[in-house]
Amino acid sequence: MTVHPDPDSLEAAAWLATLEAALSRQDATAAARLFGEECYWRDLVALTWNIRTVEGRDGLADMLRATLPRAQPRGFTLTEPASRNGDALEAWFRFETDAGRGTGHLRLRNGLGYTILTTLQELKGHEEKSGVTRERGLEHGAQRGRRTWTDLRRAEQAELGISRQPYVLIIGGGQGGIALGARLKRLGVPALIIEKNARAGDSWRNRYRSLVLHDPVWYDHLPYIPFPDHWPVFTPKDKMGDWLEAYVTLMELNYWTSAEVTGARFDEASQDWSVEVTRQGQTLTLRPRHLVFATGSYGPPRELRPPGAETFAGVQYHSSKHVSGEPFRGKRCVVVGANSSAHDVCADFWEHEAAEVTMIQRTPTTVVRSESLMEIAFAPIYSQEAAAKGIDVDKADMIFASVPFRLMADLQRPVYAEIAARDADLIGRLNAQGFMTDYGPDGSGLMMKALRTGSGYYLDVGCSDIIASGGIKVKPRAEIARLTGDAAILTDGSEVKADVIVYATGYLPMNEWVAKIVSREAADLIGPNWGYGSGTRGDPGPWEGELRNMWKPLRHPNLWFHGGNLHLSRFNSKFVALQLKARFEGMETPVY
Amino acid sequence: MTVHPDPDSLEAAAWLATLEAALSRQDATAAARLFGEECYWRDLVALTWNIRTVEGRDGLADMLRATLPRAQPRGFTLTEPASRNGDALEAWFRFETDAGRGTGHLRLRNGLGYTILTTLQELKGHEEKSGVTRERGLEHGAQRGRRTWTDLRRAEQAELGISRQPYVLIIGGGQGGIALGARLKRLGVPALIIEKNARAGDSWRNRYRSLVLHDPVWYDHLPYIPFPDHWPVFTPKDKMGDWLEAYVTLMELNYWTSAEVTGARFDEASQDWSVEVTRQGQTLTLRPRHLVFATGSYGPPRELRPPGAETFAGVQYHSSKHVSGEPFRGKRCVVVGANSSAHDVCADFWEHEAAEVTMIQRTPTTVVRSESLMEIAFAPIYSQEAAAKGIDVDKADMIFASVPFRLMADLQRPVYAEIAARDADLIGRLNAQGFMTDYGPDGSGLMMKALRTGSGYYLDVGCSDIIASGGIKVKPRAEIARLTGDAAILTDGSEVKADVIVYATGYLPMNEWVAKIVSREAADLIGPNWGYGSGTRGDPGPWEGELRNMWKPLRHPNLWFHGGNLHLSRFNSKFVALQLKARFEGMETPVY
Repeated sequence: MTVHPDPDSLEAAAWLATLEAALSRQDATAAARLFGEECYWRDLVALTWNIRTVEGRDGLADMLRATLPRAQPRGFTLTEPASRNGDALEAWFRFETDAGRGTGHLRLRNGLGYTILTTLQELKGHEEKSGVTRERGLEHGAQRGRRTWTDLRRAEQAELGISRQPYVLIIGGGQGGIALGARLKRLGVPALIIEKNARAGDSWRNRYRSLVLHDPVWYDHLPYIPFPDHWPVFTPKDKMGDWLEAYVTLMELNYWTSAEVTGARFDEASQDWSVEVTRQGQTLTLRPRHLVFATGSYGPPRELRPPGAETFAGVQYHSSKHVSGEPFRGKRCVVVGANSSAHDVCADFWEHEAAEVTMIQRTPTTVVRSESLMEIAFAPIYSQEAAAKGIDVDKADMIFASVPFRLMADLQRPVYAEIAARDADLIGRLNAQGFMTDYGPDGSGLMMKALRTGSGYYLDVGCSDIIASGGIKVKPRAEIARLTGDAAILTDGSEVKADVIVYATGYLPMNEWVAKIVSREAADLIGPNWGYGSGTRGDPGPWEGELRNMWKPLRHPNLWFHGGNLHLSRFNSKFVALQLKARFEGMETPVY
Repeated sequence: MTVHPDPDSLEAAAWLATLEAALSRQDATAAARLFGEECYWRDLVALTWNIRTVEGRDGLADMLRATLPRAQPRGFTLTEPASRNGDALEAWFRFETDAGRGTGHLRLRNGLGYTILTTLQELKGHEEKSGVTRERGLEHGAQRGRRTWTDLRRAEQAELGISRQPYVLIIGGGQGGIALGARLKRLGVPALIIEKNARAGDSWRNRYRSLVLHDPVWYDHLPYIPFPDHWPVFTPKDKMGDWLEAYVTLMELNYWTSAEVTGARFDEASQDWSVEVTRQGQTLTLRPRHLVFATGSYGPPRELRPPGAETFAGVQYHSSKHVSGEPFRGKRCVVVGANSSAHDVCADFWEHEAAEVTMIQRTPTTVVRSESLMEIAFAPIYSQEAAAKGIDVDKADMIFASVPFRLMADLQRPVYAEIAARDADLIGRLNAQGFMTDYGPDGSGLMMKALRTGSGYYLDVGCSDIIASGGIKVKPRAEIARLTGDAAILTDGSEVKADVIVYATGYLPMNEWVAKIVSREAADLIGPNWGYGSGTRGDPGPWEGELRNMWKPLRHPNLWFHGGNLHLSRFNSKFVALQLKARFEGMETPVY
């Protein structure tokens, strides 16, 4: 055991030792009393077999009382020297439970626990094979009837889903399905990914041609194979597609392309699913134990069909179908919506020299210049400078995870005050054109909007300046009232002539995929995804403290959601995979 | 500057400071006097624009006298604390020259220089773009006529070799060509790789089905994108093929498949090459400035055609054509040769239940059990344990590079004494079957054989036990005298019945590719590759001190060899790339 003899480390270690003593006596009350009145315990699968944040001494005591007898957490040990951050003493630690090994983070204030994060990192006896435990790649010694790596791999590909059933079926082969598939592969859980496109990576390739990832590379790594250090800051969409496709091959994922899940039914008796899959024209029924929806961060497109849509002579489509502005050179283009897709589509029309581009904005948008977000919000943990300080992507993810949702908005507000000051000129020019901006209902900015509703913002990579310069017109506080043969009539009574109308109106909730594939009843039973009950618009209460229905057990058995941007997919895929692995191995997983 | 205040570091730093003072005065004699009588300076492109080891004070003084005025080496600084290793004080340092920045390694004995390694790592003003200097991936701001990453990449692929000439043409798209291509890509040198197979990686895929890499994964990384930590110890050939293919895509190399160089002519006036390439049936003439042979570690197959070959009724082919023993189930199989390929082919026949497998062995073979090599030879620098100690692949390569060839055999002898003790049982049983073994002419073992002649050994992954058990028969001290309709008559007078004969007779020297593609005169002007003039069989003197003609300027202008196993390709590709980059940028590169 490494001992860090500085006073901060000694204090943190002593506090953890006292906690451990209480936990080992199964004394939940005593353990909770080590925390201040305001306190949070965030657990990712380590104690609760769930993703939960409990609050207050009573909340902590209840959770501990329920979980301690089985979890038996112990062996809390600092993994690096503790440090001071404002009025908090912060410490990283490892620990174990009966089932597994974990890592965590602690914040003390005035000697009392303030926040604690406990995460399961591996299951005892079921560790990922890596480093010294990696496969050898061959059995030394000559063997008659030898089956080579390729023979075994081909057999697996031929059998899985045909003569042998996967334990997990993952619907959707984008970054989410792929990251989860990779985790399950390393854990030895038979999993099959179903992707509707012809090639892995097409979910990126098929999008509009000028798309690049809006988040920087340090935020976007997949598990196990990081991008090399010359990888561009903003990954172009086709390059991302190629990376994902290579990743599927190199990780040897079981991945069906040109395949689609058309229906799924849960068999209460067998606890298996019956899943209809069409694959290159053929229909098959698969019988996985678990079904994971990894269909992106959203549900199906939110299609809009204003009155008179059938009379409109031009082209109209949802932004998810937008490929290029090229066909609309010299045309009048109208885009409904004012968030990310709307901006990207408008910019694309403008770049292709549309005669006129008009954005119809109903509600304010949080606009943040990419540079500002990089330099102020990302830089401390997801950046080249952070990496140089030893904050690699795994550490960064844990730092992010260590903040309970209850505290996040407060931490984000000063970040956005700084961003607002830095972006004041742009925002002023946007507002002068009528474009409405905000920093969220409580000034907490872009990321909180993303977590609460997944919409309402634009990370500016260039479009805002065109709007600010009048190159793209804005119709604020307006919606389409109806369409005529060649125009949109807005709710403010104005008319906008149009050859093409793009509905950048976002997406339905994720559980609408469940409605489409399983049943309306199942979708309603589960309820909506994302948001954490902040009580702000689009994210109603009650308070949940964690993102709804994501990466955790649902009200419906053997059904899971996995998704989010690359950061969320990467980090949470570990916990989805560990939950599935525990079930695959027949471990007890009582969910708190 | 980091100061390491321990006595060893202070001694090393003081010595380097004295060296630097002499160098800055251009006083080669004084600099050489800081070394002991036995001393070595190995320089990889930093001072000499060459790959050179000079020996003795006079050798050092001559080299320094010639190179100091232009190179101006300076800024020698320890990069980590020095350490003791036996009677040597060892230190890692960085330094710079007028042209670039480098790293190096020093061994002092009794206060005097014993070995020094200086390597060029980057050229000033022409550093690889990585980390903070990486590309952004887009130009922020909307632009009319925007060309996306994909547009630019497609244009490059369409133009290079067609309407725009590559600066470097690389013949051969195996690991060597790919590693060099990747380095040149990061350095911004327009390069095109010509690969005869249909897909990148086919040079591995097309080999016999049971093949796995004989070296462990820690030895096999490519630059920039290391294998993930679950990658098997011994990479199966198809998996290696897939890795290389993905690597070509992800590194965005310019790589022509199904293409072959049929001839090349150097134009003395323009200093360009005229290279005939057939590509998918079409013939093109390319005009690169530099031509790199990256055609593997060897020349064309050394074909054997014994007297009477035309009368033999069975099948006969060179081992490079072997795919599987499957067609020879129940047949009598003869393999000529007793090195790696011969063993692999024999084992494959045996695994496919040939009626009889006979190996014809002319000279002794160095046989080392894979486990022994891993545990004794590889473990200190290329292993999971070494990685855990902070010896990553780049450090390991530098440690290897720090040993002058003159000293290598002496360092290898005790390793092989230990291996001999550990493998004694197997070797005894092999010898009892008549199979002849040795540890090289001077007891220095397998790696020295590989470096000196590239042949004469077998890294045992299973075949030796079959031989030792009599499952594969051996005909030692024999060659084929002639063939009859159904048998080989050996030089010892014995007859071996055969349905198939495989000539595992190795390969011609690498410069035979030059003879085929450029001219016999060019091949003869250059002379043979590999070996360093050790004076042992197959590696005649005079003493060279470096591997002949590899990765360095040749007697023929603008012509280069690049090759070797994954380790040698990886490490030396950097120095080939820097030499080419310097020329591409028009820097002066006076070769010592």
